[in-house]
Amino acid sequence: MGDLNIDKAKEKAISAFLKSQKGVLSANEIVEGIFAGSTKVLGQAITLLESTNPQHIEIATDVVNKCLPKSGKSIRIGITGVPGVGKSTFIESFGSYLTDQGIKTAVLAIDPSSNVNKGSILGDKTRMENLSKNPLAFIRPSPSSGALGGVANATRESILLCESAGFEVIIVETVGVGQSEYLVKEMVDFFLLLMLSGAGDEIQGIKRGIMEMADALFVNKADGTNELFSQKAAQSYKNVLHLFTAREDNWIPETGTCSAIYNTGIKNVWDIILKFKAQQTTNGWLAKRRKNQSETWLLEQVNSELKNLFLQNNEVQKNMTEITEQVVSGKITPYAGSKILMDFFTRNLK
Amino acid sequence: MGDLNIDKAKEKAISAFLKSQKGVLSANEIVEGIFAGSTKVLGQAITLLESTNPQHIEIATDVVNKCLPKSGKSIRIGITGVPGVGKSTFIESFGSYLTDQGIKTAVLAIDPSSNVNKGSILGDKTRMENLSKNPLAFIRPSPSSGALGGVANATRESILLCESAGFEVIIVETVGVGQSEYLVKEMVDFFLLLMLSGAGDEIQGIKRGIMEMADALFVNKADGTNELFSQKAAQSYKNVLHLFTAREDNWIPETGTCSAIYNTGIKNVWDIILKFKAQQTTNGWLAKRRKNQSETWLLEQVNSELKNLFLQNNEVQKNMTEITEQVVSGKITPYAGSKILMDFFTRNLK
Repeated sequence: MGDLNIDKAKEKAISAFLKSQKGVLSANEIVEGIFAGSTKVLGQAITLLESTNPQHIEIATDVVNKCLPKSGKSIRIGITGVPGVGKSTFIESFGSYLTDQGIKTAVLAIDPSSNVNKGSILGDKTRMENLSKNPLAFIRPSPSSGALGGVANATRESILLCESAGFEVIIVETVGVGQSEYLVKEMVDFFLLLMLSGAGDEIQGIKRGIMEMADALFVNKADGTNELFSQKAAQSYKNVLHLFTAREDNWIPETGTCSAIYNTGIKNVWDIILKFKAQQTTNGWLAKRRKNQSETWLLEQVNSELKNLFLQNNEVQKNMTEITEQVVSGKITPYAGSKILMDFFTRNLK
Repeated sequence: MGDLNIDKAKEKAISAFLKSQKGVLSANEIVEGIFAGSTKVLGQAITLLESTNPQHIEIATDVVNKCLPKSGKSIRIGITGVPGVGKSTFIESFGSYLTDQGIKTAVLAIDPSSNVNKGSILGDKTRMENLSKNPLAFIRPSPSSGALGGVANATRESILLCESAGFEVIIVETVGVGQSEYLVKEMVDFFLLLMLSGAGDEIQGIKRGIMEMADALFVNKADGTNELFSQKAAQSYKNVLHLFTAREDNWIPETGTCSAIYNTGIKNVWDIILKFKAQQTTNGWLAKRRKNQSETWLLEQVNSELKNLFLQNNEVQKNMTEITEQVVSGKITPYAGSKILMDFFTRNLK
């Protein structure tokens, strides 16, 4: 299957990629392939980002740094909702709507449950059959292993690579059950929450905090006998959202209904996103949000590396279980336990 | 004036305390005073916990460790609500209700805003005029300086000291506006949210996450013409709480109305707390929650000390601003920025 820009550079990149069945491409070859819009090279680069092999990580870091100047031009959209809400079908419909207009669309995923059941979201490409065959689309399943923080980091850098490959819309899908929503919120411009109508229990199963993060809330499967219920549900969500305190960025979250199967309401979602983009570009919040996200990401990355350094410390490893046990059983305070562990840590470093 | 157990030990402790106007009491003297139930010594010990003087911290740590075996026997109650909800009046009424039954009650406070406006909650003891004069009560204002994490830590250890001094109910008050609720939730057994009735906008101003943490939600100022509105508000809160997913500890949050000024509904709050304590003792969650809290506290304390170690590192300090600027302006990724800073950190340690 081919990409949009079938040019010399791309063919060169693909042949380099084929050569690489025996080895890994060089950073420059990968960057060249990405800039040429090759989804095959893009896919390989993302594999490197997800790798734990130090050689791969080194190349991946180099690739991301080289792609950075060409990144940032897409609109980044997070999509969440409980299992069964129809996220895949929605993305299939929404993505097709975009590609029909010639908009290059990439779909990434973060699935905290994929470690457990190996049934990663998007893992089965047949769930987005049409979109996965579309030359303007790129679909990347959630990595099926790795710590959530690491997976999130790979996804974030994948966004940059997709942008460098010319994708104009990046969708990051996640399951509305864990803490992954907070990570996705921190890497996208716009956050869409999909919901279902239900007999009065609309809010059940979704954390209030996630509703508060939403820039738009759409009730999916608004078709047939469900249409009226869905409209009523959307109205009650609208009432709930209005109770939330006003946002600093002046955006008032929108609600609506859609049916991914019947392709209704899809244009409405896109119009809202365009309205959001225009408003937030004008008032400066699109840029400001991204800057804040980068700073948060830096601090969280430092935090996570500090924790790793601590937990991999020999002396800490030897004593962690016992100290924790003493704290939990009330023999020493958490404060005292922490002092002891920090003492082991710093002593071991010197 | 005076405490309950007027015995030799207490008098000895008080005289030691008086002597200490020139210097600080020894750890053993303080512990003796606390065990004797002296609120003056208890107050001084808490001052040591809040101190940044290394000598004070050393004594305070020693005191807490010595008090630990006698701690843990109270019921710990967190109380929050937006400014104006009547928290002080409620605590005055609730505390008096408890002390009237001979129950020794301590009131602590965490106020994230006290750094800013110096108008610390509980800072003005006249706000709880009767309770502050009651020999069975101990009221401690929120420290007016220090990082929120440090203040929270001092408060948590203060709970242990109050318990060792024989207090059977510990109330931790906080303002329903910031992240302090999450810290308080992590140090109490029972979390009470006070609300006001309003014209349909009951939820406004309070984060949904805080409603989710509540074990009971009471609408205060349910008196006069406001009584009926308050009952209706309590009913609508009840409906909202029922939408939340079932809790692991099997507790179903209760709602009700009260008027702290007219002392109505106060007994109801206490009855709910007793019911909670009985149920959660039987099903093991009271102990389990405290163990989980201790473990969380240990990890957060370690985390905060790791951050301090990092931020106080000379090389990190020299480069932090520039690296952050490069990340925020998109010149390097957060991942790359973090690697550079971690490299400065570890190089400087060796």
